[in-house]
Amino acid sequence: MGIVSSQLSISLDGYVAGPEQSRQDPLGRGGLRLHEWFFGLDAERAQDGSAGVDQSVDAKVVEEMTRDVGAYVMGRRMFGGGDGPWDEGWRGWWGEDPSFRTPVFVLSHHPREPLLMRDGTEFRFVTDGIDSALRQARAAAGDREVAIAGGASTVRQYLAAGAIDILHLHLVPIVLGAGERLFDGITPRLEQETVVAGPTVTHLRYRVLR
Amino acid sequence: MGIVSSQLSISLDGYVAGPEQSRQDPLGRGGLRLHEWFFGLDAERAQDGSAGVDQSVDAKVVEEMTRDVGAYVMGRRMFGGGDGPWDEGWRGWWGEDPSFRTPVFVLSHHPREPLLMRDGTEFRFVTDGIDSALRQARAAAGDREVAIAGGASTVRQYLAAGAIDILHLHLVPIVLGAGERLFDGITPRLEQETVVAGPTVTHLRYRVLR
Repeated sequence: MGIVSSQLSISLDGYVAGPEQSRQDPLGRGGLRLHEWFFGLDAERAQDGSAGVDQSVDAKVVEEMTRDVGAYVMGRRMFGGGDGPWDEGWRGWWGEDPSFRTPVFVLSHHPREPLLMRDGTEFRFVTDGIDSALRQARAAAGDREVAIAGGASTVRQYLAAGAIDILHLHLVPIVLGAGERLFDGITPRLEQETVVAGPTVTHLRYRVLR
Repeated sequence: MGIVSSQLSISLDGYVAGPEQSRQDPLGRGGLRLHEWFFGLDAERAQDGSAGVDQSVDAKVVEEMTRDVGAYVMGRRMFGGGDGPWDEGWRGWWGEDPSFRTPVFVLSHHPREPLLMRDGTEFRFVTDGIDSALRQARAAAGDREVAIAGGASTVRQYLAAGAIDILHLHLVPIVLGAGERLFDGITPRLEQETVVAGPTVTHLRYRVLR
């Protein structure tokens, strides 16, 4: 059975999103700064057209983290859902090629038919909780990895449940001062496995101890 | 003029000491875990008698951080002082060989004669504030570095005053959940300079931008 992993960008003061998150501003005030290192990547790829062959340290880390993933689990807000029923026209933030290219299990309180996207990504909506979503993702992934894609509250729930084996943190040298804390109310035991210094951020891989 | 640096061990959730700090328990509940990597060092050195030649990654980092320091500044609590006048019999936590081997300027509200220790460390007590202490430390250090030794509130004051050039953080993969936060009320701008992976913790060196 494959491992279960998750990756998050985190500020030096422990925040994974800024304050005042909303559907319009899902990362919260200042939260975009947590992801600039990653967007920098995208810009580079778009510029030289060499998707997948970017040799930068950051790109290599991202590639290594994602290449063995056979299924994702995602919270409803990360997919763009609110508390109400789904707007059937909504197909996620990522357009027709969301780049997951695997089944993605979206936690939700509202049932919805699966969405098959152009690049092979298939969003499947799970209404019976995080255990069921993980079970389905494991079945879909087979020997490959299951990645808990986010958002932070979803990752926190799986960490609290002891269901995550590997936690990747991209440590961004900013101080947000307020917002959503990854370790709010949970105190997992972690063991440092690998450390990779990117040009602006540090990529940390931790094993979650049982 | 030498640079001003500071080093702190910090948890993944941004704490530099545990909750319920007291004179009896200056690191707070669980706070000792932040320093185990360092105490591990000491144990190793004591065991093989090879003080200064320990080749471990952690030891090398510590040696590099301290070898150019010409003076230290320290808060009164780190030296072991409370709110009242000094107990003249108190000579710090470290015995007669505190290993600083330079002048150490101790912030205090109460004057006291300097204390010259056996290994050359000289504690000098400064009652007219952090600017004065830093000025005196710079004068004593000459071209060498001034290190703000701690505790956290002293480092925070100097960070808030824009007086620190280099911040070393030893990132310890523990979640304290409560305690004293380094970045409480301050949001310095930092730039990652170097990253060194120790066996259990990560040593991060940041430049503080003006």
